[in-house]
Amino acid sequence: MTSNLKDRSSGALPRPAVGTAVLAEFRRTPLLALIVFVPVVILLEQTVPEAHTWLFLLSVAAIVPLAALLSRATEAVAARTGDTIGGLLNATLGNLTELVISFAALQAGQYLLVKASLAGAIVTNTLFMLGGAFLLGGFKHHLQEFNRVSARFQACLLFLATIAILVPSVISEVDRAPAAAFSQKLSLGLAILLIAVYGLGMLFSLRTHRELFAAVGHADEDEKPWPLSVSIVVLIVVTLLVALVSEIFVGSVQIAAEHLGMTPAFVGFIIVALVGGAAEMTTAFSAARANRLDLSVGIALGSAAQIALFVAPVLVLVSYFVGPEPMSLQFWPGAVAMMLVATMAATLLSNGGRAAWYMGVMALATYAIFGMTLFLLPPATPL
Amino acid sequence: MTSNLKDRSSGALPRPAVGTAVLAEFRRTPLLALIVFVPVVILLEQTVPEAHTWLFLLSVAAIVPLAALLSRATEAVAARTGDTIGGLLNATLGNLTELVISFAALQAGQYLLVKASLAGAIVTNTLFMLGGAFLLGGFKHHLQEFNRVSARFQACLLFLATIAILVPSVISEVDRAPAAAFSQKLSLGLAILLIAVYGLGMLFSLRTHRELFAAVGHADEDEKPWPLSVSIVVLIVVTLLVALVSEIFVGSVQIAAEHLGMTPAFVGFIIVALVGGAAEMTTAFSAARANRLDLSVGIALGSAAQIALFVAPVLVLVSYFVGPEPMSLQFWPGAVAMMLVATMAATLLSNGGRAAWYMGVMALATYAIFGMTLFLLPPATPL
Amino acid sequence: MTSNLKDRSSGALPRPAVGTAVLAEFRRTPLLALIVFVPVVILLEQTVPEAHTWLFLLSVAAIVPLAALLSRATEAVAARTGDTIGGLLNATLGNLTELVISFAALQAGQYLLVKASLAGAIVTNTLFMLGGAFLLGGFKHHLQEFNRVSARFQACLLFLATIAILVPSVISEVDRAPAAAFSQKLSLGLAILLIAVYGLGMLFSLRTHRELFAAVGHADEDEKPWPLSVSIVVLIVVTLLVALVSEIFVGSVQIAAEHLGMTPAFVGFIIVALVGGAAEMTTAFSAARANRLDLSVGIALGSAAQIALFVAPVLVLVSYFVGPEPMSLQFWPGAVAMMLVATMAATLLSNGGRAAWYMGVMALATYAIFGMTLFLLPPATPL
Repeated sequence: MTSNLKDRSSGALPRPAVGTAVLAEFRRTPLLALIVFVPVVILLEQTVPEAHTWLFLLSVAAIVPLAALLSRATEAVAARTGDTIGGLLNATLGNLTELVISFAALQAGQYLLVKASLAGAIVTNTLFMLGGAFLLGGFKHHLQEFNRVSARFQACLLFLATIAILVPSVISEVDRAPAAAFSQKLSLGLAILLIAVYGLGMLFSLRTHRELFAAVGHADEDEKPWPLSVSIVVLIVVTLLVALVSEIFVGSVQIAAEHLGMTPAFVGFIIVALVGGAAEMTTAFSAARANRLDLSVGIALGSAAQIALFVAPVLVLVSYFVGPEPMSLQFWPGAVAMMLVATMAATLLSNGGRAAWYMGVMALATYAIFGMTLFLLPPATPL
Repeated sequence: MTSNLKDRSSGALPRPAVGTAVLAEFRRTPLLALIVFVPVVILLEQTVPEAHTWLFLLSVAAIVPLAALLSRATEAVAARTGDTIGGLLNATLGNLTELVISFAALQAGQYLLVKASLAGAIVTNTLFMLGGAFLLGGFKHHLQEFNRVSARFQACLLFLATIAILVPSVISEVDRAPAAAFSQKLSLGLAILLIAVYGLGMLFSLRTHRELFAAVGHADEDEKPWPLSVSIVVLIVVTLLVALVSEIFVGSVQIAAEHLGMTPAFVGFIIVALVGGAAEMTTAFSAARANRLDLSVGIALGSAAQIALFVAPVLVLVSYFVGPEPMSLQFWPGAVAMMLVATMAATLLSNGGRAAWYMGVMALATYAIFGMTLFLLPPATPL
Repeated sequence: MTSNLKDRSSGALPRPAVGTAVLAEFRRTPLLALIVFVPVVILLEQTVPEAHTWLFLLSVAAIVPLAALLSRATEAVAARTGDTIGGLLNATLGNLTELVISFAALQAGQYLLVKASLAGAIVTNTLFMLGGAFLLGGFKHHLQEFNRVSARFQACLLFLATIAILVPSVISEVDRAPAAAFSQKLSLGLAILLIAVYGLGMLFSLRTHRELFAAVGHADEDEKPWPLSVSIVVLIVVTLLVALVSEIFVGSVQIAAEHLGMTPAFVGFIIVALVGGAAEMTTAFSAARANRLDLSVGIALGSAAQIALFVAPVLVLVSYFVGPEPMSLQFWPGAVAMMLVATMAATLLSNGGRAAWYMGVMALATYAIFGMTLFLLPPATPL
């Protein structure tokens, strides 16, 4: 869905080696310097495994550049494999960081953290990423236009996924003592349904009706993506590194959050979501400033829809093979409410196909309301 | 509201007898052959009244052709009595099957079944009928247009009715021990209000602002409706037959559902709604394939609005004269949630005035989420 | 936000004294004759303080003309001080009556009345004022157009404020035993956030993007506002009178409501809101009849947004200095549901930018559903 990374390609040499391409990348993106924290955090975890707060902070710092490399490599593979396969790759690997972090939490049996980070990623992409793009774009441009058909399509997908998550949660609220078997069977069925709908959505947006999704903006054509071999090597190596660091992150987050005075809800919803989406946010924000709001809206809403319709159901399916017991799609009612509000906000804001800075303020204010609530929530609240 | 049956007229002879017209109808619509089950189920009920599963299955099979005849007769009377009276007739008798089935359940004191079938009919018309029309139409036509003013009008009416049903349910949820007297008085007031709003809506759409509701499509003008006398005879006879079969259906549905492993919620919401609306669905789907999506959207949303604003309140009023005690408009919270979601989905999907196959997928997927949940619901759930 | 009172100016003489200007006003607006009840109610309160029902009825009658004078004086000051300062004044003082009534209730520690009247004012402005304007305008004009950008902006603001009120209420519902400290801290943070968003909204609509908010209608330019000195004197004197009468109103409302058979919820939501908004309603309704629906929609939605984003948070801040303890932004779930429904209705109705009489019927019917529910609510319901 997020065929959005086209302009992040780099490496101008005809056939550079892995090292050259990656180095050129570093020069373009100073953020990548944070990669120095990857070995630091791995070493620290070996030597001082009880330094939870440091491990947490360093793993956050280490994931950000890895996520940036990951999305760049995904995009480079996509660019080399033709539009349809490329679109499919972007649509399935676009949230690889979130998938790997959630997978680490799933293995550790921390289902609440998995669900909080999924809900948080949906809300963060919809409100923070979209709002930030509107605000930053609005500072440079008086009014910005974007493809409302595409935005509406993503908003509808998000709505559908929110409903799929809402129904089992509401039903089990009403029924007070939900039969675990009911919740598990329903979650399995819903997961399969959502993945099927997502697959059909790709067929629709990449094949049968692709003309509806044409961006108003135009990509910089003067940059070339990395060669295929480089991209695949980077993809594999960096995925392994993200997996390693995610494990450290998941292992340290709970105790570190306590030390730092943050509620587990705030960490799951806000911190993990911001970390996992940092790379995409950079792209969305700079696209907005370059008056390519189509790209920003596509990344923000497309990524949220992808997490809701692909990453979350895949984790439900994976939980049958990994982790202590199957994970359900049943979320904390507060999380469902936030996802529903975020979806409604996205619908309202994308309805007109035009943006100005104040629309960014409204989206960010809604996000701030959620962040404030989660930050102040008494830690004993049952999520 | 559903001035939509114009093209289902048939019988080309100038003054055919009842038999000729009905026979011509049978040749056009093979579905009507199911009418053979009407005498079968009536006989079976007389001879083997304890064969609940068979009585249930046969009564379902018998209601479908009766519903088709009923809507055709209604439309024929409407066509012969001028536009305004015809529109009124369509608007009041368009859901006669649902009304008769619900009336039978009301007489039997099965208020949960009445409410489940009302909520189910609203949700089924909004999601399944609209979604099916979008999907089947989309398979033949790349993009289809429809009158969004008309669709929005129906969506607004649906929203209003959902609110009227939502408020007493939410209030009594909050108040935990709802005073029965409060719920009953409020339901009576709301029923009168909804019927008044529905009446004014007909004044609006059939009289003062009828130009806004003009279809984009064009009806087949080469077919003539049945003569008035035929239509009225068919209307009366078939209504009586529907009433007879509905009584058998209502008497057998609970035990049959248990035997077939279906929850009462699933039967009420899904089975009864699909049976009662089978005739209208056939029309809506074939109109969509004929690229007359205006007609499909009008039937789907108009019929849902009619059930919410006319059939449901009329049943509340009727319950004061029939049945053990007055029925309230207070629904199971899960039913209210589904109606609200269906209304929001209808608003989102009809907002643009354009349809493609994937919009059908999204509506049907939402319907599948509901169906799956109701099918898996533990039978002991208090509805 | 409500730069809407432009046409209520009067007083054609070049430099009339206070008396002349006010007298001219009286001749134009017979409603102002109700001002005779101001001394009556003050005298009665001194002599027969236990006549609660009479004090209640007379204070209601006395507030209406004072509110009319107040909004006229505000507007006159605004007209004399230039567009930006005038817009700011209108935006901050437009709901001065509601603010003063709520302040009196706050001082008396009647937080439930404060909250009911705030929620009621939002719902009444959105549904009753907007619906009445659509209906009355629709009786004279077949179809009316209005600036949908402006209407959407106000609807988005309302949505945002409703979310800010929804979140603490939902969270504390879920958590059953909400820590009072949590609720209080969160309310303080949200209040500051809402006021900031409201301030930025004025910057947006009055400064950076004012061209988007241009009305389609045209004001009567032949009337001149009162001179500045007159306006300021009237503003101060009338504010003091409103404060006096509000105190009597707040002191008598509870017992009077019991005597009149009205629930406290009905009085707070419906009576106080209708009284406080009477002046604005007169303007909105006559603007609609004069085919200046932009003005009506601006007053109705702008006033609702102002109460939600400015009056309510200001009262939370003020409660730290006045009243027994800080007031929270946590509302009765039924009130939150009504605000959410009103916001959704406003979004649906203002989406198309066109109005006809039946849209008024739908908004008024939604309001009637709420009024009916509140009127029938068992008095013991915990709000």
